[in-house]
Amino acid sequence: MRVAIQGERGSYSEEAARIYFKSLDFELLTKDHLDEVFDSVQSGEADYGVIPVENSTTGSIRKSLDLLLERDVRVIGEVKVKVSHALMSVKGRIEDVKVVYSHPEAIAQCEKFLKGKNWIVVPSLDTAGAARIVADANDASLAAIASERAASIYGLKILARDIQDIPLNITRFFVISLRDQISEDADTTAAFFATSHKPGSLWRALGAFARRNINLLWLESRPIKGEPWNYSFYVEFEGSINEYAVREAIRELEELTIWIKILGSYRRMIL
Amino acid sequence: MRVAIQGERGSYSEEAARIYFKSLDFELLTKDHLDEVFDSVQSGEADYGVIPVENSTTGSIRKSLDLLLERDVRVIGEVKVKVSHALMSVKGRIEDVKVVYSHPEAIAQCEKFLKGKNWIVVPSLDTAGAARIVADANDASLAAIASERAASIYGLKILARDIQDIPLNITRFFVISLRDQISEDADTTAAFFATSHKPGSLWRALGAFARRNINLLWLESRPIKGEPWNYSFYVEFEGSINEYAVREAIRELEELTIWIKILGSYRRMIL
Repeated sequence: MRVAIQGERGSYSEEAARIYFKSLDFELLTKDHLDEVFDSVQSGEADYGVIPVENSTTGSIRKSLDLLLERDVRVIGEVKVKVSHALMSVKGRIEDVKVVYSHPEAIAQCEKFLKGKNWIVVPSLDTAGAARIVADANDASLAAIASERAASIYGLKILARDIQDIPLNITRFFVISLRDQISEDADTTAAFFATSHKPGSLWRALGAFARRNINLLWLESRPIKGEPWNYSFYVEFEGSINEYAVREAIRELEELTIWIKILGSYRRMIL
Repeated sequence: MRVAIQGERGSYSEEAARIYFKSLDFELLTKDHLDEVFDSVQSGEADYGVIPVENSTTGSIRKSLDLLLERDVRVIGEVKVKVSHALMSVKGRIEDVKVVYSHPEAIAQCEKFLKGKNWIVVPSLDTAGAARIVADANDASLAAIASERAASIYGLKILARDIQDIPLNITRFFVISLRDQISEDADTTAAFFATSHKPGSLWRALGAFARRNINLLWLESRPIKGEPWNYSFYVEFEGSINEYAVREAIRELEELTIWIKILGSYRRMIL
């Protein structure tokens, strides 16, 4: 079994893959960019992809949502990972630090910690990659923001722990595959839809859920590219496509929306 | 009159300020970070601030929305600016380019152009600042993504024009001030609200608009920091607070939501 992630060994995506597939033996395919994870799943190179979709502090991972809309893959599972960032370097002396490497999302999550530090902040493709860059350079003036696990993989010393602005910082990942795999305990469905530009059109669409007592877990709007001020909506709601009420709600939505794309049903992870 | 922006002379924020205040004489206060624009307006240093809130390709400027929720300022106007990015350098030879500087939003808007170019992409505080860095360094291997106006201000040569992925690329700015200034022709209102975690709570809240035929222009969810999977909603809708139907809708929303914060009413700019 092969699992594709964006990032390197020691990344939070790898952690998510290990949590989801537990003791199962799998080969990890590491990719530089999110679209390459989708390519890998769509071409059959990987059996599954694990992609970040939301962080509890900064919000949706927009690139992932846009790819879920554009590409033809199914969402089959969810993993939540507690993200606790550490600052790390070769020597472990914070007074030596001049340059900090990390992924832009991690940088945004540590904004308060970084403010006023007068360090040059350089974005990298992922947090583990930042740790590897710092380890490879073997230069005490460089530091990385990554997990403590990445520090131990790349032999770096911890300068500061738990440096994210909001202590409880969780990233949510989706497991994607080419074909649906709806488990019997699936309790959540993800979809995209677009409504017309008339007053009340979103309200009418959401009525398909409300009238059936289906709880909406997340609603995120995304601009439709090339059509300024037109949006599609990404939704997650309680229930599996295998449930009658959900199928009826989707049938009604097909009439109330311009288009709808169901991404899949999966078991929500409690964390 | 003093107007604070994030960015330098030649930035799209400056262009937005010049469009909004037209021939009015004003002093431009340039700030490195968005929160400093809010500080400047709140302390009375600046009479107005001009901040980006949304781009038609990439979506909301999250930092601006979060500051509009946290800080005590009023939204009094809107400006839309067509954003056409150019690549520029000192010598004007694209084969010399090794490093490209720009604002992360501009980098995201030019993703397809940059893909496969094998350039090191370095984020800067704003697009005009990137142009200044390249001009100051006087190094032909450095390039910036910024407006053609920035190229002419900093004496750089254009290597490529209109390099954004989506040709029609518009950024929307808000004019903020300490006190309300609701013009007679105001036709749009912006607000934040949060709903309970019960099925149908968002649907019921949106009913306050739908039943009055008030058109929703934008709905954006933002995570509530420190409360994973709880969200507030940012909305823009047609009508001014000075209109009866809007005041009635807000009164109803106060009962249907946990909290609501009205940001102001302003005249929408058609572009």
